[in-house]
Amino acid sequence: MSGSGSDAVAVVESYPMNGGDGTFSYNKNSYFQRAATNLARAAIDEVIAGELDVKRFSPALTAFRIADLGCSVGPNTFVAVQNILEAVRRKYESQGLASQLPDFQVLFNDNVSNDFNTLFASLPSDRPYYAAGVPGSFHGRLFPDASLHFVHSSYALHWLSKVPKELVDPNSPAFNKGRVHYTSAPSEVSNAYTTQFTKDMATFLSARGEEIASGGIMVLVMPGIANGIPYSRIPSGVMFDLLGFSLMDMAKEGIISEAQVDSFNLPVYAPSPDEMTALVESNGCFSIQRMDLAAPQSKIEDSVGGHACMLHLRAGMEGIISKHFGSEIIDDLFDRFLGKTKEYSDRLNSAFLQGSQLVAILKRK
Amino acid sequence: MSGSGSDAVAVVESYPMNGGDGTFSYNKNSYFQRAATNLARAAIDEVIAGELDVKRFSPALTAFRIADLGCSVGPNTFVAVQNILEAVRRKYESQGLASQLPDFQVLFNDNVSNDFNTLFASLPSDRPYYAAGVPGSFHGRLFPDASLHFVHSSYALHWLSKVPKELVDPNSPAFNKGRVHYTSAPSEVSNAYTTQFTKDMATFLSARGEEIASGGIMVLVMPGIANGIPYSRIPSGVMFDLLGFSLMDMAKEGIISEAQVDSFNLPVYAPSPDEMTALVESNGCFSIQRMDLAAPQSKIEDSVGGHACMLHLRAGMEGIISKHFGSEIIDDLFDRFLGKTKEYSDRLNSAFLQGSQLVAILKRK
Repeated sequence: MSGSGSDAVAVVESYPMNGGDGTFSYNKNSYFQRAATNLARAAIDEVIAGELDVKRFSPALTAFRIADLGCSVGPNTFVAVQNILEAVRRKYESQGLASQLPDFQVLFNDNVSNDFNTLFASLPSDRPYYAAGVPGSFHGRLFPDASLHFVHSSYALHWLSKVPKELVDPNSPAFNKGRVHYTSAPSEVSNAYTTQFTKDMATFLSARGEEIASGGIMVLVMPGIANGIPYSRIPSGVMFDLLGFSLMDMAKEGIISEAQVDSFNLPVYAPSPDEMTALVESNGCFSIQRMDLAAPQSKIEDSVGGHACMLHLRAGMEGIISKHFGSEIIDDLFDRFLGKTKEYSDRLNSAFLQGSQLVAILKRK
Repeated sequence: MSGSGSDAVAVVESYPMNGGDGTFSYNKNSYFQRAATNLARAAIDEVIAGELDVKRFSPALTAFRIADLGCSVGPNTFVAVQNILEAVRRKYESQGLASQLPDFQVLFNDNVSNDFNTLFASLPSDRPYYAAGVPGSFHGRLFPDASLHFVHSSYALHWLSKVPKELVDPNSPAFNKGRVHYTSAPSEVSNAYTTQFTKDMATFLSARGEEIASGGIMVLVMPGIANGIPYSRIPSGVMFDLLGFSLMDMAKEGIISEAQVDSFNLPVYAPSPDEMTALVESNGCFSIQRMDLAAPQSKIEDSVGGHACMLHLRAGMEGIISKHFGSEIIDDLFDRFLGKTKEYSDRLNSAFLQGSQLVAILKRK
């Protein structure tokens, strides 16, 4: 075996969320993800109460290990792992095994470029677990064999390990001219994205299959899409279209070039439940406890919705956009984006009515 | 149980080594520690070959866990854990258990204020282990019960968890006027240091006793001192005296105040082998495999020795000195210190001939 650095599929680049604690930080602007965490909580409680067989681990188990993959810098990750830990503790109690409750160790994972210093400084001081940070790509191995009992990942698995090359090849039918994503794009473009996601999920599931002990649970929460629904009808799709429109406006005004827009593609993907089911079954290590879509919230407030979307997108995407276009365009770009959210508020609001959050709960066979 | 944040003895302050990769960084100026690592290597190889009974862990063992306590930012920690890992691997092979070789997981520990981002970015890409960072004070619990198989700590345990209060109390007989350490100080001062070190080692050994699996090994390398030898005759003692002299010179010139010097004390301690033996026996969890002193190097070059000492002291102590006196005095102070090393080169050189590195090898009963 070897560590995460060598086994991993080559991750061309990684883009940390905005660090620190400022106005545009991920820390202050991750409430969509927080909403996802709250929604997933009930599902997590249910699967632990119903499906987690703690007797299968004890009494040899000295530590119950929980991993959060793509944890960013908090605070959502702390809320999520605390929920999991409490549900596991209740399960031990309900099974009359309170006296055998093991120590908990939580392994916080994200890319090497994540701001682990901020994460560590903000760890809850009264946490009832031993904390560790694990740097590296979850597209490769991160943990020893069969060493994990519960794996959680929220809004991380939609990041592809890389941008498919053909998207930026002017001679390819998948050349993604004038767009920044496969939203509203020809099928060649979305097929290139799908192929990459399929490869990434194969390596992800294979790595987790080795790391999760038999009987262990994995909960994946990420942007999802109903079968047959175009990506342009879910919230992130609308946002990516509006981001592309804003960039093309800037290109038309000569602030950036069209070639820069053509060569920029957001490496994020949202699968359907059927697609994820097929990928999990193809891997073969996990049984599916749950695979469905939920809407993260009913309707955003018209008055604040556009602003919230802008802050959300900026916190998550400023790094990757700055790297490609330069940081000097950022304020202008997101001002334009905010204007677009007003212009397209009907489309944005109806997208938020769509079920757009995929919850996959898997159990290691 | 609870995590490191709550169980830990109150650590008043922590002072990270100079981060990054610049001229005065710990990363570039930790060759004394590197020399210690090289010297300890033979001892580590020997204890693993002779005393580590890997059959005691296998075949239930899925991961062999190595912790480095006070790892700083590298590269010494990477060299040390690689040495340990290779020696363990050889042991599995020599016992005919190569096919049962478990995964290795290395847990890199240091205070929360350590620059883990730099540590993670410099992890060897071809490392044959899974890496994790564990933030928190080793004066409290850091890991689950019985989850470690080999613990290493080099040049970290000499840091006290806090400065004893009486050292800065003008009404106490332990008031440490005009000095920055117990080197060359009255017995009341050194007794206050000894009392604090005794408390710190009690909590340290108690925590490690719970965390290390039966049969596991702990190697502690730190500044040490022969019984009956005054601290002023070992290298760090000479350096602390010269640092105190330099500060007092600056106080006499009015650059800083004498009160500032009086209220500043370096929270570092060097025990004798007999003292450490008594502390380990009082704890009761460990058998002593080895407890002795070695000289880290035969003799430093006159021409470079003072400069090397200055860089070494600056890399390790700039943080704590800046916090107390302000960063504006640092360049001046270390220029003066360099001058003192020339003035006192005989004393410094003879100190380097003393056995001044304590190697303690303990085995969990």
